[in-house]
Amino acid sequence: MMDDPLIQTVEVAALPEGLPRASDFTVASEPRSPLGPGQVRIQVETLSLDPYLRSLLGTGHLDDAPLGPGQVMAGRGIGTVTETTSGVAVGTRVLAETGWRAEAVVDADQATAITVPDGVPASAALGVLGMPGLTAYAALARHLRPAEGETVVVSSATGGVGALAGQLARRAGARPVAIVGSPAKAALAVDELGYDAAVVRGRPGWIEELRAACPDRIHGYLHMGDQETLDGVVEQLAVGARVSLIGLIDQSNGAAPTRLRAGALMAAHAAAYGMVVYDHADLAAEHVEVVGALLAAGTIRAPEDRYLGLGQAGEAFAHLMSGRNRGKVVVIVDPASTQE
Amino acid sequence: MMDDPLIQTVEVAALPEGLPRASDFTVASEPRSPLGPGQVRIQVETLSLDPYLRSLLGTGHLDDAPLGPGQVMAGRGIGTVTETTSGVAVGTRVLAETGWRAEAVVDADQATAITVPDGVPASAALGVLGMPGLTAYAALARHLRPAEGETVVVSSATGGVGALAGQLARRAGARPVAIVGSPAKAALAVDELGYDAAVVRGRPGWIEELRAACPDRIHGYLHMGDQETLDGVVEQLAVGARVSLIGLIDQSNGAAPTRLRAGALMAAHAAAYGMVVYDHADLAAEHVEVVGALLAAGTIRAPEDRYLGLGQAGEAFAHLMSGRNRGKVVVIVDPASTQE
Repeated sequence: MMDDPLIQTVEVAALPEGLPRASDFTVASEPRSPLGPGQVRIQVETLSLDPYLRSLLGTGHLDDAPLGPGQVMAGRGIGTVTETTSGVAVGTRVLAETGWRAEAVVDADQATAITVPDGVPASAALGVLGMPGLTAYAALARHLRPAEGETVVVSSATGGVGALAGQLARRAGARPVAIVGSPAKAALAVDELGYDAAVVRGRPGWIEELRAACPDRIHGYLHMGDQETLDGVVEQLAVGARVSLIGLIDQSNGAAPTRLRAGALMAAHAAAYGMVVYDHADLAAEHVEVVGALLAAGTIRAPEDRYLGLGQAGEAFAHLMSGRNRGKVVVIVDPASTQE
Repeated sequence: MMDDPLIQTVEVAALPEGLPRASDFTVASEPRSPLGPGQVRIQVETLSLDPYLRSLLGTGHLDDAPLGPGQVMAGRGIGTVTETTSGVAVGTRVLAETGWRAEAVVDADQATAITVPDGVPASAALGVLGMPGLTAYAALARHLRPAEGETVVVSSATGGVGALAGQLARRAGARPVAIVGSPAKAALAVDELGYDAAVVRGRPGWIEELRAACPDRIHGYLHMGDQETLDGVVEQLAVGARVSLIGLIDQSNGAAPTRLRAGALMAAHAAAYGMVVYDHADLAAEHVEVVGALLAAGTIRAPEDRYLGLGQAGEAFAHLMSGRNRGKVVVIVDPASTQE
């Protein structure tokens, strides 16, 4: 018989009001769970911190129940299977809803095996090689289809989806232009992510700045944001433009429903697509192969803000939600042992 | 030298307030014009009466100047070239901006040669085989692409675009459902145009009627109408739905800009397309061939409300604008001589 050691976790300490703070979370522990049939035990290596987690704190997100004080914080992570009562072998690298814990037991059919090319950190499976990356890849391939010399505007341009979308647009021969939330992100967009120009949305005159950055108007637009951003872009669409709707502000808070001016679509003879990444699962293997090779070659960049140790998870989440992150925010659960 | 007889015309007698009346127009005449270089004289056979003409009376439409009392009413017609100073031969059947007159002189490059299959009235070139028909054909072929068993909703379902769209959707194996403006048009839609069901928009409970008529939700939607109609439909889109935006109420009067709820597009993983018929000129020959053959075979119907004689043009226009027409409204200029 093995010992049944305690598993390190991070619990919700208090429901945040407004922006979360590090002190809203606390390190705790729980007993190791036995495996039921068809399950795997995962040694968690890296946690993915994502904005949707905020909505779990007190209200819930889609079908997920809300979390309260004393509960282990939810979230996805990657790790290695260390014990199994299923067809998934020990040693398999998987992505799963682990929560913020060092070790997790999940149903094997809820764990997705991941492959990451040599030379690429495993955490890429949470971002640029994971769902955010597939979202960008499919939006470019299926919706925007940029041609040489066209202008592609990306909102939330330095985020998990946007950063890859801008780089893929450039590789397709288009001119990527970033819409971002701060001057620091504008600098990141141009200096590190290869955007031709970056505009800080919401500032006085930002629409004119966007117009100046897009003298041939906008052929492709990847939208993640608010009504003002959408309005500002669609008035500048080029004839034949394509718009991919990736994320709407009203999905994550109580904002009024985002609406797209139909006359702007007609005037531009444009198409607008609602993007749901699950529709594009058929592109997943191609996405990992193509983008994995570009990453391994150093041709594209996938910035990460890495926090070391479960004890930093609350700080990492506060950083993410403040909007000051420069890349995908991840927590390396046990920096000493994680294989890369 | 020929005589220079007077040409019969219809002039604006008074600018209509609200709905036009027959008495807002009056039969008049003008001297026959000489031909300049590169022109054709057209013996006008059939006039096309269209709602956009209303906006010429006092305000103007797009780039067209407004018309006032004493001016010949504008509009398109078909006829036969009787004299030419251009490469267009005498005897050619053409479509042109003739205005409401029995004979017109136009620049030859503004006259489009038309071909109409045997057994089909030439007036079809103004509607089902003309731009309204091409709009429907291209919206089905390029935007809605209905599959067997899908539900296709058509607004303004008995109009020049809608009547063909519904019939083409049925021929593609889809279930066409009509949105119309009156119970009389609902009966026309179901009894004569092959719609499975018809719903009168704007009545209390019409959204529920639409829901009942579309139990599998809405896979394709062809929009010509107002905000309430668009809102009612997009909430019922099926996953993977396609929306073709053909006409917006705010294009033809002072209504607030029509807006499309982006979240509905995302929830349905849907695509919305701004339709501009000129983008689909490459389909024009196929459209005339395919739809012409269906018309000649009597497989599809293109109802017309025919008025006989220029003296009936004002009455015909009042009828059109009242919304009581049952098909494309045309005026046969000289019923005795027109070849069909």
